[in-house]
Amino acid sequence: MGMAERLVVIGGDAAGMSAASQARRRRGADDLEIVAFERGRHTSYSACGIPYWIGGDTDGPDELIARTPEEHRARGIDLRLGTEVTEVDPARGRVLARDPDGRETWTSYDHLVIATGAVPLRPPIPGIDAPGVYGVQTLDDGEAVLRGLDRAGVRRAVVVGGGYIGVEMAEAMLRHGLEVTMVDRNDQPMNTLDPDMGSLVRQAMEGLGVKVVSGAAVREVLVGADGRASAVATDEATFPADLVVLGLGVRPGTDLAAAAGLPLGEHGGLLTDRAMRVHGAEGIWAGGDCVEVLNLVSGAFQHIALGTHANKQGRVIGINIGGGYATFPGVVGTAVSKVCDVEIARTGLKESQARAAGLQYVTAVVESTSRAGYYPDAALMTVKMLAERGTGRLLGLQIVGRDSAAKRVDIGAVALTAGMTVDEMTGLDLGYAPPFSPVWDPVLVAARKASDAVAADIRRG
Amino acid sequence: MGMAERLVVIGGDAAGMSAASQARRRRGADDLEIVAFERGRHTSYSACGIPYWIGGDTDGPDELIARTPEEHRARGIDLRLGTEVTEVDPARGRVLARDPDGRETWTSYDHLVIATGAVPLRPPIPGIDAPGVYGVQTLDDGEAVLRGLDRAGVRRAVVVGGGYIGVEMAEAMLRHGLEVTMVDRNDQPMNTLDPDMGSLVRQAMEGLGVKVVSGAAVREVLVGADGRASAVATDEATFPADLVVLGLGVRPGTDLAAAAGLPLGEHGGLLTDRAMRVHGAEGIWAGGDCVEVLNLVSGAFQHIALGTHANKQGRVIGINIGGGYATFPGVVGTAVSKVCDVEIARTGLKESQARAAGLQYVTAVVESTSRAGYYPDAALMTVKMLAERGTGRLLGLQIVGRDSAAKRVDIGAVALTAGMTVDEMTGLDLGYAPPFSPVWDPVLVAARKASDAVAADIRRG
Repeated sequence: MGMAERLVVIGGDAAGMSAASQARRRRGADDLEIVAFERGRHTSYSACGIPYWIGGDTDGPDELIARTPEEHRARGIDLRLGTEVTEVDPARGRVLARDPDGRETWTSYDHLVIATGAVPLRPPIPGIDAPGVYGVQTLDDGEAVLRGLDRAGVRRAVVVGGGYIGVEMAEAMLRHGLEVTMVDRNDQPMNTLDPDMGSLVRQAMEGLGVKVVSGAAVREVLVGADGRASAVATDEATFPADLVVLGLGVRPGTDLAAAAGLPLGEHGGLLTDRAMRVHGAEGIWAGGDCVEVLNLVSGAFQHIALGTHANKQGRVIGINIGGGYATFPGVVGTAVSKVCDVEIARTGLKESQARAAGLQYVTAVVESTSRAGYYPDAALMTVKMLAERGTGRLLGLQIVGRDSAAKRVDIGAVALTAGMTVDEMTGLDLGYAPPFSPVWDPVLVAARKASDAVAADIRRG
Repeated sequence: MGMAERLVVIGGDAAGMSAASQARRRRGADDLEIVAFERGRHTSYSACGIPYWIGGDTDGPDELIARTPEEHRARGIDLRLGTEVTEVDPARGRVLARDPDGRETWTSYDHLVIATGAVPLRPPIPGIDAPGVYGVQTLDDGEAVLRGLDRAGVRRAVVVGGGYIGVEMAEAMLRHGLEVTMVDRNDQPMNTLDPDMGSLVRQAMEGLGVKVVSGAAVREVLVGADGRASAVATDEATFPADLVVLGLGVRPGTDLAAAAGLPLGEHGGLLTDRAMRVHGAEGIWAGGDCVEVLNLVSGAFQHIALGTHANKQGRVIGINIGGGYATFPGVVGTAVSKVCDVEIARTGLKESQARAAGLQYVTAVVESTSRAGYYPDAALMTVKMLAERGTGRLLGLQIVGRDSAAKRVDIGAVALTAGMTVDEMTGLDLGYAPPFSPVWDPVLVAARKASDAVAADIRRG
């Protein structure tokens, strides 16, 4: 028998460990040695779950860990915690890693999986690193926020950023009984939606008692006499804060890859082919929050940090390293979230994204109910659809509502993947029964109106 | 200006009145006279809502009426209630109608819409017409059941039939505090599912306290000394009943069409083209529960009585009569229901349907949670997928679960319409966030397992 190949994984979270697990399922330890380096203390945890842990919806942090280091090791993965890879040497097929004792060692690889994740954005403003300013990226961050909440006299929270993490953390702070201010540089919260849909989120958040400050750039975190953050200042105003939460999004964690000369896209993420091989790099694969993904609707690459993509990409990598064949075809930009009982969903392109992609479109916005109007708990939802001029191809779907609204976006996600027109969508055989939908599902109502808009636009010429 | 054309509609419910309304939106009263004959007292009501009205989830009957006779008349539709069409004369383009006073009059048409609905199945057994035996097809039926429930000493209900109406009515009877027995000739309730999935429904119903008697044909309804139904007898046993509910499904209401020599399919429904014109019949359209629909997965016609199809077909007819162009492409067989908190959904073909269509398939069954496992209210659901041998094309999807399970079937409905393979489905960009889905949506987990099953089957050869 020949010598085993070695798979080296950098990053012990979703993408990296999914790749390792899949490869292990297909190739035994005699055939494939697997070494995984993780600079932190945890593996395979749900960063998306941190706001719900902080908000008290779920226990943590153990509950957020899908698979522990011990479980990975039991499956024959040589996992090195607290060990940071400091250099990748593609020419010689090896990586340099520093272990917890500070020792640096080269490890050679036949296959390398780069799954270095994302780095939270932290604007370089005064006070940003003061005690009392918290990120929500890691389990350690989550514990730190909870300790911060336990301090005496914590009454006011300022959440910086109005995206997914921002609105989820605003809810979490509300649940701790805090006065919550959300400061966001965009005109409306949830900038992944069009402004008209984002304004519905704003109304909902204001209805919950959140003070929403839009179009406001944070200039400074003021620090009190105790050395802790005491307020957040914008150009226009200062917002007192006993606790500051940063939810400003992330950038791809590709410093290591960049230093190794690996190809990065315009958003700073690694560029791969559909099999998740890094372009032009022999034996190197990448997945998760450190890569750019093809948006199948726009035809452009973008950076989206989302656990579901990381898991899928890791699985694809592991199957391919394992001797099978799989591809990650790309994304359509689906995302769902909620703030208290308000559900928020989007897929495809919003208006500004469609314009940026050179696509012309018509829009339709409708209001309909989640269930038959006469059925208990039927609640209004607003559905917006973008369709391409002329062809009527679906380009995007956005939903804001209060009851079984968000997951309806999956209808749009599949239709986008299939390249359906909004007219074709009007005929979709969606599930109907009074407890689950009006006789015309809200998505069908939107498709009808969008189809009419496409036709009217054609008539106008 | 020339003389107006006349549109005659037979049947004042979903399909007929949708057609009338759409035609009216496109053609004014000067251009199109619209006469609609309805033999009953109501228009445009939700028959699907009747079990929820009886169960007390919603008020009725007014709440179940989407549009009243007065509203239709206000839109310029000459609606004749209590007026039954007794003959269609396609050769001379006219219909004979008997008004509430018994007068019969011929009315000529340029366009005729046949929307005569469905007829509840009533097996020709002794006692079936006794007082205390109820259908649940019309609003009058609903009122009759509620009056039956108000009688003194009503304690035991027997529901005959284990399909959608049967399980919904079993729940309604439970809500009135009755002891409920469901007698069904099939091996498992919900015969629109495969038996292994139907057995989950059985377990759930038994858990709710319903006595489920399967594989049992009803031979007789026994009548007590008071002349009312007192028990339901099968070959094996007799089940005492203070109230008997028939939920045995329906057949197309096409006696009138058959007498006129119009073409019926093997299930007794009218046959139309995609524009909903009756085959070979000049100026005659048909829609709703009286037609057969093309199943896009099997390629065969079938009869499905469902309000959402009726509404879509009526709209298509109205657009076409109105001078526009629309088609009803067919169905994929989607249906959702629930019994208490158990959600039931299916789309595409079940195993026996696939076999009947000459299709060979592999199956995958998985259990997964509705939300991230650590998120509150996450509940197990069972997902079954059928994929075609060799090609891996999705053939069917069935779901039974307790929390946001049913509407996930829409993912399958769109994928079936698009002709996707289960392998393609593994890459679908479905909405993920802990309150809405595990990082792998249950449908994706099923697609992965089905994709593996397709590959394993190919390897076996």
